[in-house]
Amino acid sequence: MPYLNLKMTKEDGGATTEQKAALIAGFTKVFVEIMGRGQKTMVVTIDEVHTDNYGIGGEQVTEIRKK
Amino acid sequence: MPYLNLKMTKEDGGATTEQKAALIAGFTKVFVEIMGRGQKTMVVTIDEVHTDNYGIGGEQVTEIRKK
Amino acid sequence: MPYLNLKMTKEDGGATTEQKAALIAGFTKVFVEIMGRGQKTMVVTIDEVHTDNYGIGGEQVTEIRKK
Amino acid sequence: MPYLNLKMTKEDGGATTEQKAALIAGFTKVFVEIMGRGQKTMVVTIDEVHTDNYGIGGEQVTEIRKK
Amino acid sequence: MPYLNLKMTKEDGGATTEQKAALIAGFTKVFVEIMGRGQKTMVVTIDEVHTDNYGIGGEQVTEIRKK
Amino acid sequence: MPYLNLKMTKEDGGATTEQKAALIAGFTKVFVEIMGRGQKTMVVTIDEVHTDNYGIGGEQVTEIRKK
Repeated sequence: MPYLNLKMTKEDGGATTEQKAALIAGFTKVFVEIMGRGQKTMVVTIDEVHTDNYGIGGEQVTEIRKK
Repeated sequence: MPYLNLKMTKEDGGATTEQKAALIAGFTKVFVEIMGRGQKTMVVTIDEVHTDNYGIGGEQVTEIRKK
Repeated sequence: MPYLNLKMTKEDGGATTEQKAALIAGFTKVFVEIMGRGQKTMVVTIDEVHTDNYGIGGEQVTEIRKK
Repeated sequence: MPYLNLKMTKEDGGATTEQKAALIAGFTKVFVEIMGRGQKTMVVTIDEVHTDNYGIGGEQVTEIRKK
Repeated sequence: MPYLNLKMTKEDGGATTEQKAALIAGFTKVFVEIMGRGQKTMVVTIDEVHTDNYGIGGEQVTEIRKK
Repeated sequence: MPYLNLKMTKEDGGATTEQKAALIAGFTKVFVEIMGRGQKTMVVTIDEVHTDNYGIGGEQVTEIRKK
């Protein structure tokens, strides 16, 4: 029942299905090992965000990637 | 001015426009009846998430649906 | 497994335990009736936010409530 | 390291790249000026949401825009 | 009706009421100037997060601040 | 610059500082290993939520824990 949301930029076509499966499995494993619950109920959602819609230090990631 | 966000998997083509309208109306009605405010101002957003990007119990919903 | 988050201002001591229970039950009922899933798995979280930390139209709710 | 998320409706084709860049720069500038930190590290993400998935006062924005 | 959420660490007793009012007013002004809407309806919420509950590069901000 | 938010119930006094540090380190390690980026920039925030404010299957966790 713990809930985890990840936001990451969508780069070079985005994460593969296998990478997403590994993120979901990995985050859940970390939580279960540390907190001792959530093995069957932890929910994970992943938002891939266009680099135009993602900024760091006031700058679009699209621009940062051009440098 | 209350704010509600729903995340759900996008299955079989996703929720219809009518289902989304009913969710928005229904959630708002529940809030207004219980809290006595928000009738004109409550904001609802709905995120439909690809089953590859949604996990439960460490597993992608895409895989769970195949079982 | 659908996930719903509500943010609302904390006013007059905040929502009661009963109001929160009713919100959780009500939002879940609406979702289950419309989407036909989530009856056992829907997760709801409620954030009560201090009126100093909540703004509408550029103004703190704390100030709006004084008017 | 402060984190800001904006949700807005996607209207008339959505915000332009230039508008998104300006929002990212503008929000970061406001935070840095007021809080005195975050100049290099502030993260901003923007979610543009279809008007079918956005409600106010219990009504879809799609319907509100028709009026 | 646009919705903006800010998460920042709570440092040295946290942001003052005046700083929060200025953030709410400032973010709203930026949005209205760039997008031409939201002047009366934009919602802003601010979450101040304990430095134990905030990490960057895998490290708690509490630890980073000790360095 | 990836951003991860965890919501979990606050049970038995809540997670310890050490558990939170381990969650932040663990989630970041998983992301870096799978995606090959974010080692210095990944941001993690943890929200501990009162069991009155957390529901599953339409029921408050407070009530579920009594069973």
